Amino acid sequence: MYNFRNDYSEGAHPNILQKLITTNLQQQPGYGDDVYSEQAKILLKKHLENFNAAIHFVSGGTQTNLLVIAALLKVHEAVISAHTGHIFSHETGAIEAVGHRIITIETTNGKLQQQCIEAALKNYQLRPHIVKPKMVYISNATEVGSIYTKAELIALWEFCQTNNLLLFMDGARLGNALMTPKSDVTLADLSKYTDVFYIGGTKNGALLGEAIVFNNQSLAPEFDYVLKQKGALLAKGRLLGIQFLELFTNDLYFQLATHANQMAMKMATAISALGFGFLSEPVTNQIFPILPKKVIESLANKYLFYQWKEIDAETAIIRLITSWATDEQVVNEFIADLQQAVN
Amino acid sequence: MYNFRNDYSEGAHPNILQKLITTNLQQQPGYGDDVYSEQAKILLKKHLENFNAAIHFVSGGTQTNLLVIAALLKVHEAVISAHTGHIFSHETGAIEAVGHRIITIETTNGKLQQQCIEAALKNYQLRPHIVKPKMVYISNATEVGSIYTKAELIALWEFCQTNNLLLFMDGARLGNALMTPKSDVTLADLSKYTDVFYIGGTKNGALLGEAIVFNNQSLAPEFDYVLKQKGALLAKGRLLGIQFLELFTNDLYFQLATHANQMAMKMATAISALGFGFLSEPVTNQIFPILPKKVIESLANKYLFYQWKEIDAETAIIRLITSWATDEQVVNEFIADLQQAVN
Amino acid sequence: MYNFRNDYSEGAHPNILQKLITTNLQQQPGYGDDVYSEQAKILLKKHLENFNAAIHFVSGGTQTNLLVIAALLKVHEAVISAHTGHIFSHETGAIEAVGHRIITIETTNGKLQQQCIEAALKNYQLRPHIVKPKMVYISNATEVGSIYTKAELIALWEFCQTNNLLLFMDGARLGNALMTPKSDVTLADLSKYTDVFYIGGTKNGALLGEAIVFNNQSLAPEFDYVLKQKGALLAKGRLLGIQFLELFTNDLYFQLATHANQMAMKMATAISALGFGFLSEPVTNQIFPILPKKVIESLANKYLFYQWKEIDAETAIIRLITSWATDEQVVNEFIADLQQAVN
Amino acid sequence: MYNFRNDYSEGAHPNILQKLITTNLQQQPGYGDDVYSEQAKILLKKHLENFNAAIHFVSGGTQTNLLVIAALLKVHEAVISAHTGHIFSHETGAIEAVGHRIITIETTNGKLQQQCIEAALKNYQLRPHIVKPKMVYISNATEVGSIYTKAELIALWEFCQTNNLLLFMDGARLGNALMTPKSDVTLADLSKYTDVFYIGGTKNGALLGEAIVFNNQSLAPEFDYVLKQKGALLAKGRLLGIQFLELFTNDLYFQLATHANQMAMKMATAISALGFGFLSEPVTNQIFPILPKKVIESLANKYLFYQWKEIDAETAIIRLITSWATDEQVVNEFIADLQQAVN
Repeated sequence: MYNFRNDYSEGAHPNILQKLITTNLQQQPGYGDDVYSEQAKILLKKHLENFNAAIHFVSGGTQTNLLVIAALLKVHEAVISAHTGHIFSHETGAIEAVGHRIITIETTNGKLQQQCIEAALKNYQLRPHIVKPKMVYISNATEVGSIYTKAELIALWEFCQTNNLLLFMDGARLGNALMTPKSDVTLADLSKYTDVFYIGGTKNGALLGEAIVFNNQSLAPEFDYVLKQKGALLAKGRLLGIQFLELFTNDLYFQLATHANQMAMKMATAISALGFGFLSEPVTNQIFPILPKKVIESLANKYLFYQWKEIDAETAIIRLITSWATDEQVVNEFIADLQQAVN
Repeated sequence: MYNFRNDYSEGAHPNILQKLITTNLQQQPGYGDDVYSEQAKILLKKHLENFNAAIHFVSGGTQTNLLVIAALLKVHEAVISAHTGHIFSHETGAIEAVGHRIITIETTNGKLQQQCIEAALKNYQLRPHIVKPKMVYISNATEVGSIYTKAELIALWEFCQTNNLLLFMDGARLGNALMTPKSDVTLADLSKYTDVFYIGGTKNGALLGEAIVFNNQSLAPEFDYVLKQKGALLAKGRLLGIQFLELFTNDLYFQLATHANQMAMKMATAISALGFGFLSEPVTNQIFPILPKKVIESLANKYLFYQWKEIDAETAIIRLITSWATDEQVVNEFIADLQQAVN
Repeated sequence: MYNFRNDYSEGAHPNILQKLITTNLQQQPGYGDDVYSEQAKILLKKHLENFNAAIHFVSGGTQTNLLVIAALLKVHEAVISAHTGHIFSHETGAIEAVGHRIITIETTNGKLQQQCIEAALKNYQLRPHIVKPKMVYISNATEVGSIYTKAELIALWEFCQTNNLLLFMDGARLGNALMTPKSDVTLADLSKYTDVFYIGGTKNGALLGEAIVFNNQSLAPEFDYVLKQKGALLAKGRLLGIQFLELFTNDLYFQLATHANQMAMKMATAISALGFGFLSEPVTNQIFPILPKKVIESLANKYLFYQWKEIDAETAIIRLITSWATDEQVVNEFIADLQQAVN
Repeated sequence: MYNFRNDYSEGAHPNILQKLITTNLQQQPGYGDDVYSEQAKILLKKHLENFNAAIHFVSGGTQTNLLVIAALLKVHEAVISAHTGHIFSHETGAIEAVGHRIITIETTNGKLQQQCIEAALKNYQLRPHIVKPKMVYISNATEVGSIYTKAELIALWEFCQTNNLLLFMDGARLGNALMTPKSDVTLADLSKYTDVFYIGGTKNGALLGEAIVFNNQSLAPEFDYVLKQKGALLAKGRLLGIQFLELFTNDLYFQLATHANQMAMKMATAISALGFGFLSEPVTNQIFPILPKKVIESLANKYLFYQWKEIDAETAIIRLITSWATDEQVVNEFIADLQQAVN
């Protein structure tokens, strides 16, 4: 069975493992003060075109989200998120556990826009009987595979600035978002039009690791304490530094994300060619084809994927996810199997 | 300007103030171990027909809600509430601040029923990536003035038992709920068909005070620690004990709630007689008439009330609240003024 | 049995009860926006000689402490306290429950001084592996009856300013501290030489109530949210406003504290005259005489008090507390009984 | 400069890196459901001789401690620790941040014994005005290099059982504790005489990773939720499973700890032979020699180590730490350099 269920089924890109081996017995300071972490941060700041940024490496997305929110919000402040936002839908109350409400907004495509945030702000005005909205959390790519364009991002940023809201972007699948041909956003744009975001490594070639970027280091000058308090400061911080150093050497990170996207697009094109539609336009490495149940059953014999939603007695939506490690050979087989199942 | 905006505009029933004076210089142990608190608890247990209950007096509703939920839920557990539930809509994130998510359900009448809870449970099954629903929070009367019948309560209780959920009733306006002729529920029923509930004093004749009832004392055997930790254990606990002792002597509590309800019904009957409708059936001391804006403007010159919602350019809904202290004379005047404004 | 065990055995000063009655049916806005609370705040600001202060009334000391600390500290910051400090010794982990460590310092007299705080700061330097000290908490009078002089207070304040520490004074027994002849501190001094403090009502004539004073309103501009979130915002805030209005009308607050102190001094003088010593110099309304156990046993037949500590087989220390309501007649009897027990 | 400052300066044992490479492209389920984690758990349970245990792999020690304590304590419960305990001295308030007080005990050797715990329990009896002690936290090896014997462990366990306390052992350096010739304790003993403990990987050959062992799986049946909520559940859980699988294959874990201990003993023997003493008996991989400052200065030119404490103008204590990766060649050089510096 080949796994199209998620993008964390394999280990790490071989370059990373190789670098772990060649550096293995170099003695280094602990807790992120190693030379690899330092080099990786410099490299990232070049990509960001922002040497005023503060960068911290941590081990996962939920951890990132709770750290950033715990560090930036006061006890009575809340974060606004799409209903599909990872902090609301898949993190077991991590944000509430550090004391904050998530104000949710229903969306059709996982994206937040000015109008819906305005409506939420209006519902949260009864000071002091209700929490104060202080942060907007968005994911790029979203949990349903969509992305923000540069124009949308700038509009959100300006709205947040006007309304004294922090803008935080969850970049668990940031590579996929940036590398789709539909995107006109760069890392440097994110450093201009958000307050804080993170660059996801776990889902794009790393064993584990996310790079948190505060675009202005004065935003959380004592974030190191928070890292340690929440159990996020690895003794062997080199493990994270080395990975980001490799991922951003020769643009490996972008290549890996491009591969994942291309594999998904290849499948999407074939599915389209067979006359099937999608829940939403295929853009990144998550696609949601609408298929006859018979076809789905047939594919399910050889491939793992998520059965997203039933449409009617004969049709359903599935989710297919590709990754940096997806084998093009298998993609080709999948397409062939699909064509055969249809005929 | 007479206030129909809320039910906490006045002080306390005179019996209470009188008792404060006559007992004032009696030396008593602190922290709720005074003789008045003891007597009040015995009296309440008689009404509850439950001597296995554990009763604690605290100063307000938000405090009650956060205490009960902090004491009963584990870190990864959540409480289900109507979207209108006080814990979600009016308590400034008190529940999230003690670490728990509120899972909200949209309702038309502020009441939770089995079907909607079942749907919520279904959405919260992706263990361990989402919190575990463990408690159902209901208000009686609800925040929009509706009540639970005995049959509804038993159905909810049985559903909760079957699904390993705790049932917690917010009784900030419990007197109003029990004393409406539409209700067939008694205090003793609440002691059978909920795990924990509270009897609201602040909105029914007390200066401040709510009586938390755990129907089985084994549910929270160390609740006293939690009371102290959250700043809810008054040094002069006598202040709470005396008030509940007076409120439940000669059924004063029930009489006061009956008065509030009757005043609201008197207004509702007159409004009906003039041909106007209501957002929801008038049942307790909160009513939501739909009136011409011209009429509303005229009334607003003499009376304070909440402008609930606009219907159209010419019509809107207002909320009128009566209390144990509402002056029947003023109610009569209000009715006369209304009749005049209409004609 | 007469109670010298604590200073919260009785109700409230009669002026307060009288005012509750005369204002009882005046309709007032809820949540502290009533006219009495407004008047009380103005009156207090006059005493403080500080119209830039922000004042909030709440119901008790533990609540006050957790509110102030939750509002002012960031997640990785800690508060320094004497080991005897109420927040450490008597509040059931209220401060840890809102997420903060209490860094404790052993003292002989319950008072903090520059040297011991400096030592604590030195022990808490291993950033980011240990919390950051950010606040100094002192009690005046302390939990063992001692007080701060103006010189000591100014020295502490300057030390805190230099070291970027907030200074917070717990004034549960502030009246007793200010009114002892040994004190040269005024309310206005507290408004100059602390960041935040509170004026205790519960132990000096109120049914319940503490007045939190932020000396600079910009220190916690959104404290109202925190009050509501922690369940501290009373619907009938008038109850607190009325009490502080009465307590500070015609200096009643100071008279009540003076009475309590004088009763304690009368006992102390008599005890001294009999040749007995004290654990610490009697200064406020808590005194700690060292007496023969035989004498203690004899007194324990008629009076309630706390057996503080055994010295040896024949001698022990007891604690006697007087209050605004202590009956001088009983004090005289106690002295006579003591004299008789000794002879 | 060679680093004797800590035991996390290098990467991982080569077997682990090799296994990461050979398994790298095997698709596996995420979040710890991979086959390597399963195999590692079975292997560990064999060592523990306990198939009723529940094992969870996480990334670090602070994370482990906060997870276990958050999952097992109720809001009003506290944990008892030596003053030197890692949770108190080096984790930035992680335990307070999840709401719990650490009750500290001063010790001379970092170890807790019955008498001092009894004294702490006595100080924490004023229910409900003080937190309830519910857990005892010990480290083995301790933060100052000492260990618990089997007799001491059993005595502690029995004391905890009698007093309704949970016993939790921090095993960040568990290998070093078990493999010193002074120890008569086995992994299977820990599974009998503690409630929960962890097997430290980070400091004994892993890139990162600790194995939490609940000796009775009924103690925390929903711990998976807590893992996710606190950001501790790695998407690629295989990274942790593979490491523990390798560490416990052919007893590698024990060999690595033995090497570290032997390197420290070699240094200790040489130091002793030169007539120098130690702060405490050298037992594990942390030793604390007392040396002339001149000697220390000389060594500091070639070696990194921690200057523990000054004794007098001419003498001080240093801390030397060895690890699984310490090069015996360098140890020999260090000894030669020391001998030369002395002469």
